Amino acid sequence: MTAVSQPVVGAEVRLDDLPLRADLRGKSPYGAPQLDVPVRLNTNENPYPPPAELVSDVTGAVAAAAVDLHRYPDRDAVDLRTDLAEYLTRRTGVALTAANVWAANGSNEILQQILQAFGGPGRRAVGFEPSYSMHPIISSGTQTEWVPAPRTATFGIDIAAARAVLTERAPDVTFLTSPNNPTGQSLDPDEVASLVDAAPGIVVVDEAYGEFSSHPSAIRLLDTHGDKLIVSRTMSKAFAFAGGRLGYLAAAPAVVDALQLVRLPYHLSVLSQAAARAALRHADATLASVALLSAERDRVMAALAAGGFAVVPSDANFVLFGRFADAPRAWRAFLDRGVLIRDVGIPAHLRVTVGTPEENDAFLAAATALATTELETDR
Amino acid sequence: MTAVSQPVVGAEVRLDDLPLRADLRGKSPYGAPQLDVPVRLNTNENPYPPPAELVSDVTGAVAAAAVDLHRYPDRDAVDLRTDLAEYLTRRTGVALTAANVWAANGSNEILQQILQAFGGPGRRAVGFEPSYSMHPIISSGTQTEWVPAPRTATFGIDIAAARAVLTERAPDVTFLTSPNNPTGQSLDPDEVASLVDAAPGIVVVDEAYGEFSSHPSAIRLLDTHGDKLIVSRTMSKAFAFAGGRLGYLAAAPAVVDALQLVRLPYHLSVLSQAAARAALRHADATLASVALLSAERDRVMAALAAGGFAVVPSDANFVLFGRFADAPRAWRAFLDRGVLIRDVGIPAHLRVTVGTPEENDAFLAAATALATTELETDR
Repeated sequence: MTAVSQPVVGAEVRLDDLPLRADLRGKSPYGAPQLDVPVRLNTNENPYPPPAELVSDVTGAVAAAAVDLHRYPDRDAVDLRTDLAEYLTRRTGVALTAANVWAANGSNEILQQILQAFGGPGRRAVGFEPSYSMHPIISSGTQTEWVPAPRTATFGIDIAAARAVLTERAPDVTFLTSPNNPTGQSLDPDEVASLVDAAPGIVVVDEAYGEFSSHPSAIRLLDTHGDKLIVSRTMSKAFAFAGGRLGYLAAAPAVVDALQLVRLPYHLSVLSQAAARAALRHADATLASVALLSAERDRVMAALAAGGFAVVPSDANFVLFGRFADAPRAWRAFLDRGVLIRDVGIPAHLRVTVGTPEENDAFLAAATALATTELETDR
Repeated sequence: MTAVSQPVVGAEVRLDDLPLRADLRGKSPYGAPQLDVPVRLNTNENPYPPPAELVSDVTGAVAAAAVDLHRYPDRDAVDLRTDLAEYLTRRTGVALTAANVWAANGSNEILQQILQAFGGPGRRAVGFEPSYSMHPIISSGTQTEWVPAPRTATFGIDIAAARAVLTERAPDVTFLTSPNNPTGQSLDPDEVASLVDAAPGIVVVDEAYGEFSSHPSAIRLLDTHGDKLIVSRTMSKAFAFAGGRLGYLAAAPAVVDALQLVRLPYHLSVLSQAAARAALRHADATLASVALLSAERDRVMAALAAGGFAVVPSDANFVLFGRFADAPRAWRAFLDRGVLIRDVGIPAHLRVTVGTPEENDAFLAAATALATTELETDR
């Protein structure tokens, strides 16, 4: 053979030749671009690296766990769930136990397990859009019919209208969000309770950004609405643990029992369990960044408004803003200035994650420079 | 309040009250008992702890990765897939690249993704039973119809009969296993090729125990059968990395593209990716245990046969043996002697994982003691 490079094995097989499910044909993988640019404000990560003590503790926990890597992990992750319950109890004042908590590789896996248990073929899920784009994707991935319902012009939820939708469409699973990604509005527990009362099936309140919210968690409703309510959370955002992939939920113990019927056995590695427990021991230090980020969010919102942008008030660690003449073009213009933000598909709008003060300054400088060329003009 | 213990929130909600999918009602969660006994030979783990250098390297890799825990992992795990491809190339002589490899949280998640892409509602999967019990469970979890096909009386596959089944039942996904868990037989690539030729859809060759096999990997067939063939592997067994949860597959690049349509984004944590890469750097040291375990397996098989047990010849790190008058009762009798083995549901048989020489001695001592009371007698 004289060839200098070998062909890739199987390269002649094309995606269209494979017996792929019909509903997947023509689709593209989900995901924000992972680009290496100076200022990355596109995936709502916490910009503050984990404190040195947390890194040290995670490393020590992993070192201790690694000597047993030849053994399967605790399939039910009881110690981790106990720690998560203790954390939630401190945050919310609701006395939860490990029996109330379930954990998985990111809240995406939590949501997938919920849909495998309570959704699926012949069943229907409702969400209020625009919202987290993975809700319809995971519904589709579990063959659950996705029924989008509208938000108001200011991206809130009209409770009376939403109750009517839930009564009329009778979803098996309803997705609420508090705060809502990508638009930033929280729901108050009273509003959630009203919607759970109207919903015939399971209601998932996705509180991925819950620590940033000015409203209490829906967890306080579990005592009265535990027959329907699931509150999902994540360590990705406030906990600065996106790389650790640890999502969890609070619910009635029977809901946790139900999810154990569909979870893949040993889904959470010993490393994930050990590292998450170590990170939880530093909750107070990590969550200190929440106050910093909330203050920065308010500064970013004010500066954008002063610069002529339309700003959607946010209760989270990101801001939706506009109005752009051409949002994809504006997204590219920010990127050309070294600032990666997110085009979430809402016409005339882009979403920026709140970063460090320096990152926010760089973003605001780019925004100021781009306002004259990219903003909609009155016609 | 004078109560000394609070009730668990939501404890009054019963599983039967929840709107669970009908096909899940009455089911129990999968899983071998996780009991703390002196000799654990029930889940086909590698009994040898990771070498100190591996633990040190994993810890160092995690420490380096942990400083970026606030960032999402590489969604496509390209570095890890590159290392896995390099490992497979060394093992099999087939020049694979990262484009040929996909990885997930254990081979269970790999199999689930395959069924999400190529199985699902209205589609059908065939497997030759008794085999890995997660194949039908994950098929059910993805709403794929499960069609069991028989093995021979000695737990092998009659290739002509199997080809007829595949032609007649026309499965969208066919599961083969080499070696087969829990019975131990390998398939030769020629046999796999013959079955892939007969199968109309995707064929998954589950090589979870591939490193123990005396037969070459089906990976060598990817060049000719890449339009249908997927070979799944795991680091749980030979690699002594069960706690790390790292499954992977080799296939044509288009198959990997297809799985990226159904995988949950960021499914593999930075810790999993870093730890698995570190473990792969120690492949030669870890795999040295394979030869030790194979020799011990042969010793265990010989000793069981000499003790009057019926032994199913194994090409893996476990042995199926019998014939017991009452397998569940015999399983309990082993447990009472501090030896945890597995009742895999095959009448009159139990499965023992090959452990360290000391563990195997303890198991064989128990077997010898129990032979007189637990074995079937001629009637």
